[in-house]
Amino acid sequence: MIVVMQEGATEEQIQAVIRNLMDQGFDVHRSTGAVQTVLGGVGAKTEFDTRVVELMEGVQEVHPVVAPYKLASRHFRPEGTVVDLGRGVRVGGKQVVVMAGPCSVEGMEQMEAIAELVSKQGVRVMRGGAFKPRTSPYSFQGLGQKGLEIFRQVADRYNMLIVSEIMDQTQIPLMLEYVDVLQVGARNMQNYNLLRELGKVSRPILLKRGIAATIEELLLSAEYIMSGGNYNVILCERGIRTFESATRNTLDVSAIPVIQKLSHLPIIADPSHATGRRDKVLPMARAAVAAGADGILVEVHHDPDRALSDGPQALFPEQFERLMKQLRVIAEAVERTL
Amino acid sequence: MIVVMQEGATEEQIQAVIRNLMDQGFDVHRSTGAVQTVLGGVGAKTEFDTRVVELMEGVQEVHPVVAPYKLASRHFRPEGTVVDLGRGVRVGGKQVVVMAGPCSVEGMEQMEAIAELVSKQGVRVMRGGAFKPRTSPYSFQGLGQKGLEIFRQVADRYNMLIVSEIMDQTQIPLMLEYVDVLQVGARNMQNYNLLRELGKVSRPILLKRGIAATIEELLLSAEYIMSGGNYNVILCERGIRTFESATRNTLDVSAIPVIQKLSHLPIIADPSHATGRRDKVLPMARAAVAAGADGILVEVHHDPDRALSDGPQALFPEQFERLMKQLRVIAEAVERTL
Amino acid sequence: MIVVMQEGATEEQIQAVIRNLMDQGFDVHRSTGAVQTVLGGVGAKTEFDTRVVELMEGVQEVHPVVAPYKLASRHFRPEGTVVDLGRGVRVGGKQVVVMAGPCSVEGMEQMEAIAELVSKQGVRVMRGGAFKPRTSPYSFQGLGQKGLEIFRQVADRYNMLIVSEIMDQTQIPLMLEYVDVLQVGARNMQNYNLLRELGKVSRPILLKRGIAATIEELLLSAEYIMSGGNYNVILCERGIRTFESATRNTLDVSAIPVIQKLSHLPIIADPSHATGRRDKVLPMARAAVAAGADGILVEVHHDPDRALSDGPQALFPEQFERLMKQLRVIAEAVERTL
Amino acid sequence: MIVVMQEGATEEQIQAVIRNLMDQGFDVHRSTGAVQTVLGGVGAKTEFDTRVVELMEGVQEVHPVVAPYKLASRHFRPEGTVVDLGRGVRVGGKQVVVMAGPCSVEGMEQMEAIAELVSKQGVRVMRGGAFKPRTSPYSFQGLGQKGLEIFRQVADRYNMLIVSEIMDQTQIPLMLEYVDVLQVGARNMQNYNLLRELGKVSRPILLKRGIAATIEELLLSAEYIMSGGNYNVILCERGIRTFESATRNTLDVSAIPVIQKLSHLPIIADPSHATGRRDKVLPMARAAVAAGADGILVEVHHDPDRALSDGPQALFPEQFERLMKQLRVIAEAVERTL
Repeated sequence: MIVVMQEGATEEQIQAVIRNLMDQGFDVHRSTGAVQTVLGGVGAKTEFDTRVVELMEGVQEVHPVVAPYKLASRHFRPEGTVVDLGRGVRVGGKQVVVMAGPCSVEGMEQMEAIAELVSKQGVRVMRGGAFKPRTSPYSFQGLGQKGLEIFRQVADRYNMLIVSEIMDQTQIPLMLEYVDVLQVGARNMQNYNLLRELGKVSRPILLKRGIAATIEELLLSAEYIMSGGNYNVILCERGIRTFESATRNTLDVSAIPVIQKLSHLPIIADPSHATGRRDKVLPMARAAVAAGADGILVEVHHDPDRALSDGPQALFPEQFERLMKQLRVIAEAVERTL
Repeated sequence: MIVVMQEGATEEQIQAVIRNLMDQGFDVHRSTGAVQTVLGGVGAKTEFDTRVVELMEGVQEVHPVVAPYKLASRHFRPEGTVVDLGRGVRVGGKQVVVMAGPCSVEGMEQMEAIAELVSKQGVRVMRGGAFKPRTSPYSFQGLGQKGLEIFRQVADRYNMLIVSEIMDQTQIPLMLEYVDVLQVGARNMQNYNLLRELGKVSRPILLKRGIAATIEELLLSAEYIMSGGNYNVILCERGIRTFESATRNTLDVSAIPVIQKLSHLPIIADPSHATGRRDKVLPMARAAVAAGADGILVEVHHDPDRALSDGPQALFPEQFERLMKQLRVIAEAVERTL
Repeated sequence: MIVVMQEGATEEQIQAVIRNLMDQGFDVHRSTGAVQTVLGGVGAKTEFDTRVVELMEGVQEVHPVVAPYKLASRHFRPEGTVVDLGRGVRVGGKQVVVMAGPCSVEGMEQMEAIAELVSKQGVRVMRGGAFKPRTSPYSFQGLGQKGLEIFRQVADRYNMLIVSEIMDQTQIPLMLEYVDVLQVGARNMQNYNLLRELGKVSRPILLKRGIAATIEELLLSAEYIMSGGNYNVILCERGIRTFESATRNTLDVSAIPVIQKLSHLPIIADPSHATGRRDKVLPMARAAVAAGADGILVEVHHDPDRALSDGPQALFPEQFERLMKQLRVIAEAVERTL
Repeated sequence: MIVVMQEGATEEQIQAVIRNLMDQGFDVHRSTGAVQTVLGGVGAKTEFDTRVVELMEGVQEVHPVVAPYKLASRHFRPEGTVVDLGRGVRVGGKQVVVMAGPCSVEGMEQMEAIAELVSKQGVRVMRGGAFKPRTSPYSFQGLGQKGLEIFRQVADRYNMLIVSEIMDQTQIPLMLEYVDVLQVGARNMQNYNLLRELGKVSRPILLKRGIAATIEELLLSAEYIMSGGNYNVILCERGIRTFESATRNTLDVSAIPVIQKLSHLPIIADPSHATGRRDKVLPMARAAVAAGADGILVEVHHDPDRALSDGPQALFPEQFERLMKQLRVIAEAVERTL
């Protein structure tokens, strides 16, 4: 921790800060400049609340220097993590992984139709929700366990893996039965009881960034899961809330290279939820891959006009086909494959 | 719903939109202007996804006209709601209710000391957390049930009511045993499984606004609870995330008068979490009451330097005393009492 | 400047950073901890671009430690600045100064009517624009010099001072002829050519915070003016842009106490522009004064329904009267007068 | 304009709104639903302040239906605008135009070196500032006219065009002498006096989005210029301010497809200013082109470590070379050329 004293801070104030730091177990180094004094507190304590010092007399500002996450930091695994989803699919390696499917599981026929179309494009991971967190209490809430059963049958038929959202920790046993990748939604990114329990399983976790979460907070949430022993975490950028209202959210494309520098975990992007409109999904999916994303999560429906939820953000089959074609070229530009 | 067609939209496009609306069960009214055509879709369906029409050819924009919440809207109870907490304490009436106490329940002695000091200032509702959602997995997580037991004993001794945070729906039975007002934290504002279950109890709920939640979303979360039958909801503004980094969050003081116009539910403010620093708590608590808040939720500790969590934002006893004195004068300026 | 090296940074990388800093004229102090090395660069150079070091190999983060502003900082004048506007009016002292008037100068009759009504409430500083920066090129753009003439005559008749907006540096001579306080609008907060020229006059400047400006940037803009020799700067919080769309902007009330800690300059608030609606002006004006503002800038019109610009945010005469009454009580609560 | 009345609005209130609208010159259409009444006001008046009606009794909300800009809207020129910069360079057509060069013109040698290296990569438009708007009054402010002279000589030698920033309207004659594309910086996006004067010249304008400007406001600023007769406007996305602090600003990549739908003007992106760090420039430049940008504006320096301003965001020559190679592949994926 670095403590910058105000110009004109008295020797007494400086000594008080030094004493406080030493009481907390820090080794203190002092730099006295012409204008200001700077104190360096060295110690491995990450849990120290820097505001305690910040509020002392004569203190100008305090900077924590140890990143509050360890297991999620790039330093922990400089070579990067490749998460193995099973059936030969790996996220974080040379291949850009496309995860595609409907917003919600609606029934056997629908899942069959969509599985066929995405599978034909080479997709190996299918998305679809069985439990839907909806902003309004009066909306369609998903098929539940019955949806998961249908999903598993269809996915197996097409040799695909399943990514599906878990709503709270009580659902873990059920989800483990059916799902290959457990998705934690943006609203649950800081549901710590859920994160803690997910640390105890070994199934891969797809952790979405909250719409107002900083990148550091996303990495701290990953740390929650990893501190329980589950290192199979895939991060997902899905748009943040800004003052711009022309799009539902603003896909923070720059989070992709930033996270790749700070962390070893794979990072994918979800252009469907970020933009909320299918005509913006193609450009943003291309942008994410061009920026270096390890994958994308995208909504596709064989008949979007009749989708039970979020139809307007689902791609039509021909749009999806076109997207895959474009992504293949872009992946090449960044020395990857699709 | 209002559909504004683009300048130059063809008659065919207009007819297609009209057909779509009628298929969805709307009565359609058409206004043809010199420049643009506007269609009004009238019907009680609140669940319609307006993006479906927004994406049609020739459509410029679509505005839903029915507010997506009903029970939480001012129109539902124009005279306003007064939530009765028991023991004669009411939120939403003429009295501005101060809820004060520590961040966490740390032990009997601490609770005793704080209860005495806030009680002496006329406080009737004491705050304190037994389960703490912490950003870092390595931080103090609260005393749990033991903390609740201590809290109840102390509160009863001082004839005070308890407000304390609930983390997920599995804790409901435990919380009902000890707590008078169930607090839903900012991170749980859209934990719909929790909200739904809270709709089934009758205990008052203190619902905090998420740091990136719009006012409309806060009201929709209240609607979730109310749609289950529990109308005893108190809203709480606790700061939103903005680009300004000099304060932890930006207390959106204007949310207070905005909510009072849109909804009948009482609205209070939490200046301690919004600012994160005790030297900013007094001015912001005064601002909230001056703006018309029905109450404030404020952190006080008998010995903040030794608090186990969030000490830097807890007021010292003498600061709290001074605040109460100032608030009494300000309450008068807005024709209320403290 | 503090340079935090990454865990595992090599000695070679550390030496390269030390050399770079010394080449730039810094004295370097080194703290070697168990986990990380921290380097302190001490020197009076404020203009150093810290990103130069941030991009070096092995560097985790860099913190500048000297605030980039000097003249505007609280340390420069710990006792605070009182700006004398003339005719006995001072901003920054015990008195909370209310500046009131219409959005635009529309004509003699209008100014006369408004001057009478605000003057009767004890107002000594009247606001009104002669040049209007409008978002749309098709809107009313102000009366120009003719407006200033009218304004001056009316203000003199009522022994009031004038605050009015200047649009660019070419208008300085004209404004000096008529206006007592030169207002720099939010959109011009970083118009450096204008700020530099305003540093050369001695007339008080009312500097509004840009809607996306941080507090630090506001202080840097004040520094621009002060570095030219004009220390008569009054800062004004007028709302920032956030994701919340229920209000035009979000009045950052907490900026008031934050600025009072960081700077010696007086700070006032403009609730009219922040909220854009008269029914939100009263609560927010009260909040600003309760939070400790040195004054408020508020729009009042004798006939808002017929105002040529921004009528919806102008108070009716009776609302203004009520506001003044409430503010008198609140000012007392914070040991000030109105 | 659409006026949505509150549930329970009285007939009297409805009639008052109708009268008000008719007085303002609107034709009024009324839709009476089971729950609410909706009024449509049709008329070509774009300047109407909708808040006037919004504040009337019984009104729930008001939506303006005519976009506040006309000349900048896609409808005005459905086929899109191609801005001809001269010497065969066109922005908005099939070719993606790369504009590259240093932050500031520093001297003949520097400009010569950079011109050679970017020219070799096929660049036809060189960037470089002669007047620098700096946040701190103590920073390097540019070479001024001497810088423009050097720039013109060098550019001519390499048959390149010049894009350079104009600071205020007094500089127009000077800039017209030397510069091919006049750049309006983010801080000047709403400097209406400048915009108005730029409408009177025919030279192409590069208009940067303000860091807190909405897309609609950017288009309104373009409208200011166009309403004077100059239709040669190129828009530029350069990052917006959000709560995320890991990057200087957040490049709003989705603004590219959004603007392409709303407007006929070309849109380019500036990844250098958005991210502020060279290691993020490549991914974001690729993302912008993948999303469909008509060009990019990027900072390159032959010796970034010795640049007089913004060195840390300037690409090294070899990075620029690599970027151009990647962009060629990506341009192909979106059916364009570089």
